[in-house]
Amino acid sequence: MSKKHKVIFQPSGRRGEVEEGQTLLQAAQSLGVDIEALCGNKKVCGKCKVRIEEGYFEKDNIESGMTHIFPPVPSPDEMKHIKPQDGPGIRLACQCEVRGDVKVFVPERSRAGKQVVRKAAKELTIKLDPAVKKYNVELKPPTLHEMTTGDWERVLKFLEDDYGLKGLTFDYLVLRDLQDILRKESWKATVTVWMDKEIVKVEPGFVEASYGLAVDIGTTTCVGYLTDLNTGKVVNTESMMNPQVPYGEDVMSRITYAMSNPGVGLETMQKAIIQGLNEIIERVVKDIAKDGPNPGYVIDDLTIVFNTAMHHIFLGLNPEYIGRSPFIPAVQSSLDIKARDLGLRMNPSGYIHVLPIEAGFVGADNVGVLIAEEPYNQDENVLIIDIGTNGELLLGNRKKVCSTSCATGPAFEGAQIKFGMRAAPGAIEKVEIDPETKEARYKVIGRTDWSVPHQQMQTKGLCGSGIIQIVAEMFKAGIIDKSGRFVMDLGTPRVRKDADGKPEYVLAWASETSIQQDVTVTQGDVRALQLAKGALYTGAKLMMKKLGMTTLDRVILAGAFGSHIDVEASLTLGLFPDCTLDKVYAVGNAAGDGSRMALLNRGKRREANERARWVEFVEIATDPAFEKEFMMAMHIPHMKDRFPNLKALLEKANSKVEIKA
Amino acid sequence: MSKKHKVIFQPSGRRGEVEEGQTLLQAAQSLGVDIEALCGNKKVCGKCKVRIEEGYFEKDNIESGMTHIFPPVPSPDEMKHIKPQDGPGIRLACQCEVRGDVKVFVPERSRAGKQVVRKAAKELTIKLDPAVKKYNVELKPPTLHEMTTGDWERVLKFLEDDYGLKGLTFDYLVLRDLQDILRKESWKATVTVWMDKEIVKVEPGFVEASYGLAVDIGTTTCVGYLTDLNTGKVVNTESMMNPQVPYGEDVMSRITYAMSNPGVGLETMQKAIIQGLNEIIERVVKDIAKDGPNPGYVIDDLTIVFNTAMHHIFLGLNPEYIGRSPFIPAVQSSLDIKARDLGLRMNPSGYIHVLPIEAGFVGADNVGVLIAEEPYNQDENVLIIDIGTNGELLLGNRKKVCSTSCATGPAFEGAQIKFGMRAAPGAIEKVEIDPETKEARYKVIGRTDWSVPHQQMQTKGLCGSGIIQIVAEMFKAGIIDKSGRFVMDLGTPRVRKDADGKPEYVLAWASETSIQQDVTVTQGDVRALQLAKGALYTGAKLMMKKLGMTTLDRVILAGAFGSHIDVEASLTLGLFPDCTLDKVYAVGNAAGDGSRMALLNRGKRREANERARWVEFVEIATDPAFEKEFMMAMHIPHMKDRFPNLKALLEKANSKVEIKA
Repeated sequence: MSKKHKVIFQPSGRRGEVEEGQTLLQAAQSLGVDIEALCGNKKVCGKCKVRIEEGYFEKDNIESGMTHIFPPVPSPDEMKHIKPQDGPGIRLACQCEVRGDVKVFVPERSRAGKQVVRKAAKELTIKLDPAVKKYNVELKPPTLHEMTTGDWERVLKFLEDDYGLKGLTFDYLVLRDLQDILRKESWKATVTVWMDKEIVKVEPGFVEASYGLAVDIGTTTCVGYLTDLNTGKVVNTESMMNPQVPYGEDVMSRITYAMSNPGVGLETMQKAIIQGLNEIIERVVKDIAKDGPNPGYVIDDLTIVFNTAMHHIFLGLNPEYIGRSPFIPAVQSSLDIKARDLGLRMNPSGYIHVLPIEAGFVGADNVGVLIAEEPYNQDENVLIIDIGTNGELLLGNRKKVCSTSCATGPAFEGAQIKFGMRAAPGAIEKVEIDPETKEARYKVIGRTDWSVPHQQMQTKGLCGSGIIQIVAEMFKAGIIDKSGRFVMDLGTPRVRKDADGKPEYVLAWASETSIQQDVTVTQGDVRALQLAKGALYTGAKLMMKKLGMTTLDRVILAGAFGSHIDVEASLTLGLFPDCTLDKVYAVGNAAGDGSRMALLNRGKRREANERARWVEFVEIATDPAFEKEFMMAMHIPHMKDRFPNLKALLEKANSKVEIKA
Repeated sequence: MSKKHKVIFQPSGRRGEVEEGQTLLQAAQSLGVDIEALCGNKKVCGKCKVRIEEGYFEKDNIESGMTHIFPPVPSPDEMKHIKPQDGPGIRLACQCEVRGDVKVFVPERSRAGKQVVRKAAKELTIKLDPAVKKYNVELKPPTLHEMTTGDWERVLKFLEDDYGLKGLTFDYLVLRDLQDILRKESWKATVTVWMDKEIVKVEPGFVEASYGLAVDIGTTTCVGYLTDLNTGKVVNTESMMNPQVPYGEDVMSRITYAMSNPGVGLETMQKAIIQGLNEIIERVVKDIAKDGPNPGYVIDDLTIVFNTAMHHIFLGLNPEYIGRSPFIPAVQSSLDIKARDLGLRMNPSGYIHVLPIEAGFVGADNVGVLIAEEPYNQDENVLIIDIGTNGELLLGNRKKVCSTSCATGPAFEGAQIKFGMRAAPGAIEKVEIDPETKEARYKVIGRTDWSVPHQQMQTKGLCGSGIIQIVAEMFKAGIIDKSGRFVMDLGTPRVRKDADGKPEYVLAWASETSIQQDVTVTQGDVRALQLAKGALYTGAKLMMKKLGMTTLDRVILAGAFGSHIDVEASLTLGLFPDCTLDKVYAVGNAAGDGSRMALLNRGKRREANERARWVEFVEIATDPAFEKEFMMAMHIPHMKDRFPNLKALLEKANSKVEIKA
């Protein structure tokens, strides 16, 4: 029989009873205490540190006579994350099991704040021609004297006579309720037609409201845009962490999870994301849905984009073959799948439209970017960088467009950065470093004003988009050199060595933070960023070579993250080859924009299929020049390439950094 | 003094009064209900399980004060045989005593004497062009060096290149398993394509076997013909009682059941028939199915016919509106519905093809008859009589065909006939009555020899097809007159009055039967038959009038029952207007033949849709002439119409009966 123990969380004071053997993270979740847990119990991120304040751990094995005593001893895995300066009693909440009544303190930096939604919808200009349309129908009541025809036939005749729609069929579930619905409002009804082909809903009376959901499933974040199909406007947006994160933070680890748990791993992850999407559906419709057991049924159409691995897992397709050479996906074309076949709690007769994927790892999300930005309609040479957990690049113009995928690692998302955190309140997102004094001023998410040195702030760490701007500032201030190495002996206490003798820069002193620690940027952080930006640069460079291009006319930064990058910083660091700064701009979640466009205009679906096949996928990792290019691209902004635009920019700003022009 | 209680057996509908304390098995035997009882009441075989549906069990032991309440509690001996999966209310018929009025359901497997399958499949001549076809596919293993394409795209390319199939799609479930199946036999696979449109199965390796199931759901009986789609041959046939019978013996009572149990009645009946069909599927494939949890998955296609009410209930469509004026069905067109949407345990990606219905009560079964017999390709005037629980008529030629539905009542099926029973061993199916002595000789199903008077036989009753021949013999022997009235004082003990003073004819003396009762034909039986045949005759007559026909060139008797009718007797009684006897013939289960044809040839599906709309439905019940015509048609063979062919026939046989010519 299971025992229960009392658990109290500080400083919130939340308390309750939890079952013996549950982890503190599970206990926290069940008691509504937010603890940051990026990696999902994998002992990898080390973000969920908590301090055991008081506790009684009783004997769990009478025979051995062993007694769990306080403070509990962390496992070797935990020890990798626990530093002496963390103080006594620190454990990872995801690893520490409840064995008796316990009081736990959750340090500020372990507290999860609601993530700032970085996938907000921007206004789109597109002709409204959605795949589902509603038609009002008013039938004459049948009589015995006319040639008897069925309800189905009479609805079809009306649609043909009044709207010119021919050869429609009914979804089976719609047929099932047709008779009663037609009679409910004296033969007045509203018929929802999908792609001029199939009737996917019949509602009593005349209904105008028509909704679709445009979805973008990222490796880390999922977002759904509830869209009024009559106006094209987004009426509500809901986002959440991808519930597959516990099974792996990146694409490859999820593929591995599926392969190493045959028969259950894939199914578990598919179920998780379907459930997650159902939760988004439930939340996103709460203001417009009718009462009843199925509020999501107001959604008649759904478009969805994701990378190839998320695509496969979402559809329950074995991701093994896209994870290994020759990287063959199950399907590339777009798909239309009945919502009920996937268990989605929207209109079960409706379809979800899965945008096509390009190749290997260049997925439907990149196709979304493609149809949103339309490089194939440009005369200029356009580079589009879509940065999520992976980086995808599109390069070209109306003559030709190439795509590729870069393994950037998670640095841009704040993971594997010592004080990295999600873009949530308390995260530093912008820094100014004085080139003379090396002193820093910064801006924190959730506050409108900039820091005043030594003033107490809610500062906890720094977010992914912030790190680029911060490292660019460090470079411009001469704190790091072109190779990314720290310049020591600058006469400031902010540049120092840590306990292991590794250089770091203090961005905020402990007294300015709510975590009572100095927030720093380490040599390791700079290296992680160099690897990430080097991968992007190399991808762009090798594609330019393939297309015979020597200059870029325009650079578009896409992605939830891309939209928050400081464009000047991205040029300064060399995320991409030189370009006029006023031709570098962020477009936000372009993958999501593509999903929304496909929702609003069915021509965009055709366009997506055609262009996904037309774009040429370039495998850069197998290019013989890759290694050498990558090594050079690690430099800031680059070891050899010329940056005339950047040079002009920095000169104008009186920077002392030398740039090749 | 002994008490009597009313006992009703389902699904046969047999009922009667039995003495208190008799076992249900004894009751069944005395009422001519077949219950398997191998061990002879020894509680050993457990074959005689029945379900108590409704019933009142009064105190059976005053002293103990015990009250038998519903559901009755089985004894420990019975419990050895009763499994939890048998469900509630199950008892052994040999142990359960009648203590009050009771309604008992005899499950299919407890029924003795496998019903003579009257829906056996005859050989059809039809061009093989089934809706599902299999194609062998052999792909080149993908390499990294080719332009990467998905598995889906490579299969489609092969089908286009090698077989000219364009624009196919995959069913979602097929896509889900595609990758692993293609790799299982080194890129050799077999693809099943539905209607040149959709891939509904992919199997590893080269598979040739291809199966479909043609189904005919009657109000009383269901049958499935497992068909080899490569040869067109029926490889197995399975039939069963319609499991909806407990909810109503005829169409109208099932509609009433649905209406009087809103929210559950329809669903219950739909579930019952789907479960029944799944049982047919399981049994019909047992010789050809692979091991595994889903033997029925070998079936890739299914065609189905039924009357309009069975159609609606099967599809979960509210049957209310076809049960009342203006009799509007939900849909008339043919339907293609995913097997999984209905919960059928065949290939879940496959479709079931529901044949179209004509109008009101003239259902898909009649369309089956129509495309099997093709009256629209005849120069002659053809009358097709399809007799099931309802009677449907088709009349016409290549210029025009009309259809109608006649409420014949269940007399033709042996129901509401005092000693009527199913066409099972022990049923009298043929009689000869000596015109002089009025003595009868008869033939019983399950025996090849005719009766020798007073010899002990397993005689139990008479079957539906038998009653026609028997009454015709009685008419020819002068036992009943043209109006159907008994002629008394014929100087034979066989013509007598029953306890209520009603005339009857003794067909078999109690000593010749296994039920220890005289088997008789009563005045009520003759009247029931007259009503039934009068309805058919009136329908034919009014349609002839509408079409301006004066003679019939051919009469086709269809239906499981029709195929066993003695054609001479049917002409003698006047089931239809006069016709040359050699142009009257039975074709067996023509509705089932139509279902099979639609399974084997997709052109027949088009033809069915076109012809179902082309045939004109005639509402005979509302014809002002109906009442008068019906009254005259009740006579044997008719009150006024001339029967030159019948007259010649009877004169040749030296009958003394006078017929108008």
